Amino acid sequence: MAHQRDVSSDDPAIRANGASYMLDCIRLAQAVDSTLVSGPLYSAVGKTRLVSADQKARERARCVENLREVGKVASDAGVTMGIEPLNRFETDMINLVEQAIELIEEIGQPAYKIHIDTFHSNIEEKSIPDAIRSAGSLLGHFHACENDRGTPGTGHIDWLGVRDALREIGYEGPVVIESFTPGAVEIAKAAAIWRPLAPSRDELAREGALPAPVARLGAREHR
Amino acid sequence: MAHQRDVSSDDPAIRANGASYMLDCIRLAQAVDSTLVSGPLYSAVGKTRLVSADQKARERARCVENLREVGKVASDAGVTMGIEPLNRFETDMINLVEQAIELIEEIGQPAYKIHIDTFHSNIEEKSIPDAIRSAGSLLGHFHACENDRGTPGTGHIDWLGVRDALREIGYEGPVVIESFTPGAVEIAKAAAIWRPLAPSRDELAREGALPAPVARLGAREHR
Repeated sequence: MAHQRDVSSDDPAIRANGASYMLDCIRLAQAVDSTLVSGPLYSAVGKTRLVSADQKARERARCVENLREVGKVASDAGVTMGIEPLNRFETDMINLVEQAIELIEEIGQPAYKIHIDTFHSNIEEKSIPDAIRSAGSLLGHFHACENDRGTPGTGHIDWLGVRDALREIGYEGPVVIESFTPGAVEIAKAAAIWRPLAPSRDELAREGALPAPVARLGAREHR
Repeated sequence: MAHQRDVSSDDPAIRANGASYMLDCIRLAQAVDSTLVSGPLYSAVGKTRLVSADQKARERARCVENLREVGKVASDAGVTMGIEPLNRFETDMINLVEQAIELIEEIGQPAYKIHIDTFHSNIEEKSIPDAIRSAGSLLGHFHACENDRGTPGTGHIDWLGVRDALREIGYEGPVVIESFTPGAVEIAKAAAIWRPLAPSRDELAREGALPAPVARLGAREHR
């Protein structure tokens, strides 16, 4: 979320703006027959500070309160809200699947699920397959990104372990390749993309560009 | 390096301050019988922007010019200068071992070597063992950090592959565990440490805390 849409903000106008934006997203999802609104809904991307336990607790309470209200609307609309842990350089609030589970339990609304992105998990989780297993039936969306955000299969993410864990928990949702090229200026800045990770966006995600085991074992089954 | 010591800066006073700081470090190293000054010497930590190719070239030229001059003094003093690639959230200049090799070739001074930190390599390199092999005899310092900066062996870094690659290139230098706890406020901010990675700093690096294969195969040989 952008800073002016941060539901954990000290500023009540910013919190209200964040909640109102999510309600717009839910309406938009309904209008296009989508059942998912997902991302780091809990805070602003780039909000990384070492704050006191008191301040942390205040921000958390504001976030939970807003997401609880939004969650009621989402449930009525039949829209799932994905909570995506980000790596430590993008947020100080939810870095781990374990932290996302705690947040969802605190919100207490069934619309919330977990959105795992392996680029972030590669930095934060001890084991990505174990993180997937711990999400279990709470997993609602999945981004299959290589450790450097290049073409999946060209780096060191344990894709076979990821596949086995997704199978084991019975995940039937989409597996999305999310990456960026320096050509998309705004998002390149946000995602810290300073060098080309593939000749083009299409090339990055093209099945033909995937190493054989990934194309054969992974991509086909989870599209 | 701090922003006021950035040898790639647009500001000549800041560049001069950066070079002068490195000369002080070389003198200090000599005074304590150390043969190494190492880190992201080329730019300021946190300098992450999407800039034009022209601006990139200007910053690079300034950096190379300063490091070349510093390198002459380092050579005379018998001090190795380590160039450490950082991950994309900490610098937009040198993220890969390959980029460090190019920079060192451009500087053209034998004092410069590569300093690999596996926390950063885990985000940027396709294969950490291959990155070590590509550094080869240019490897001058090594930080063995887990993917989350927790105790090595508790995450998903391929430590046996790292060991094999270090052996293969005949690396005889130190292997250092670098991590941080939220208790060290300034460095915790810089390294984005928002949650405890171990009960204490000693606990994090204690050999007894390492899983048996890492303690047995890795730590003993490279200390």
